[in-house]
Amino acid sequence: MATKREEAAFEAGIKLGAIYHQFVGAPVSKETAETLEAAMEESISLQPHVRSVSVKIDREMLQKNVFGYGELSGKMIRALVEIDCDGAVVRAKLEYDPKIDYPLMSLLD
Amino acid sequence: MATKREEAAFEAGIKLGAIYHQFVGAPVSKETAETLEAAMEESISLQPHVRSVSVKIDREMLQKNVFGYGELSGKMIRALVEIDCDGAVVRAKLEYDPKIDYPLMSLLD
Amino acid sequence: MATKREEAAFEAGIKLGAIYHQFVGAPVSKETAETLEAAMEESISLQPHVRSVSVKIDREMLQKNVFGYGELSGKMIRALVEIDCDGAVVRAKLEYDPKIDYPLMSLLD
Amino acid sequence: MATKREEAAFEAGIKLGAIYHQFVGAPVSKETAETLEAAMEESISLQPHVRSVSVKIDREMLQKNVFGYGELSGKMIRALVEIDCDGAVVRAKLEYDPKIDYPLMSLLD
Repeated sequence: MATKREEAAFEAGIKLGAIYHQFVGAPVSKETAETLEAAMEESISLQPHVRSVSVKIDREMLQKNVFGYGELSGKMIRALVEIDCDGAVVRAKLEYDPKIDYPLMSLLD
Repeated sequence: MATKREEAAFEAGIKLGAIYHQFVGAPVSKETAETLEAAMEESISLQPHVRSVSVKIDREMLQKNVFGYGELSGKMIRALVEIDCDGAVVRAKLEYDPKIDYPLMSLLD
Repeated sequence: MATKREEAAFEAGIKLGAIYHQFVGAPVSKETAETLEAAMEESISLQPHVRSVSVKIDREMLQKNVFGYGELSGKMIRALVEIDCDGAVVRAKLEYDPKIDYPLMSLLD
Repeated sequence: MATKREEAAFEAGIKLGAIYHQFVGAPVSKETAETLEAAMEESISLQPHVRSVSVKIDREMLQKNVFGYGELSGKMIRALVEIDCDGAVVRAKLEYDPKIDYPLMSLLD
């Protein structure tokens, strides 16, 4: 049997996997990043056991292509989710790790 | 050689295909639909040759699951794009057609 | 600090969230379901800590639209992932639960 | 009223937009690229008015991350679609254009 903390960790993983694979590829610019962040946060907030979700898109990484916009990549996303499974609270994040050049997901607690 | 109107029709198709396949599957509710609509509109507005984009999510079709939210499906999306390729303007829409039970994309001009 | 089992549960959640949100919305039919299953399995197998992934698309739920094909929805997917984090092995599944009409993700161990 | 060639150009755009935004973000490696290509081709082949679809993922661009795999980006995809709308046949492609560093979609006829 899984513990409540294991359940919460599992749910946290689901949310970060969803954020990443639902929204990567979306056109985005400095002007539209805030609305996309809000949509990502509100969307994932609806899923079960979510206490909070925060999403930030790295404006520095957002490079304009020849048509003046960019595209959401995993490396640009900094997301923090807080999950509550029957009182077991777990936080996890998605954040680009420059040392390994990888958008790393990790448990914080 | 393609005409300017054919180019514009092609670009209109790209935008509707992008709207559909980027965002279908996103969790959504009546409370969050407006932000998701705005994010979809702003995102696609960035693409080349777009004069305007309008996206509406059908609240009636948005059924709550056991956890109190829904998921964006193609049938819920009503999108209108207006494309301008060097003066050739074409409008196209994505709209559920109940007669054939299908989220139909079509040129309007 | 998270335990190895909590890490494994977290990783399992990431994989199921990725499967769901990357591929839901893809056109699919009884003829193409096997190739899509293989692509989903191979894709997710690449992610860290995956020991095995199995994906089955429910052919019974695959309804043809007016143009003779269907679209992958979360309810059609039965996925089983086995994760190994430094010897802590956790299995999790995504499976439609008809009692609550929901594509449920759950830990098996 | 749109001409049949305009309709075909519109349908070609839909298919390329769908390929791009459905599959970008999927984990992929040199070992799994062939299956993903087949899944992308078969999936889009199901859509209306498609005569043929060819998808190639650029193995040279496929860089391994620290965990030994990569992720499908738009720049890696070379796709050719052939659309037939009542006898009006249009071909279109998605191909990375290094001169503008952009995954360009264009009509070929």
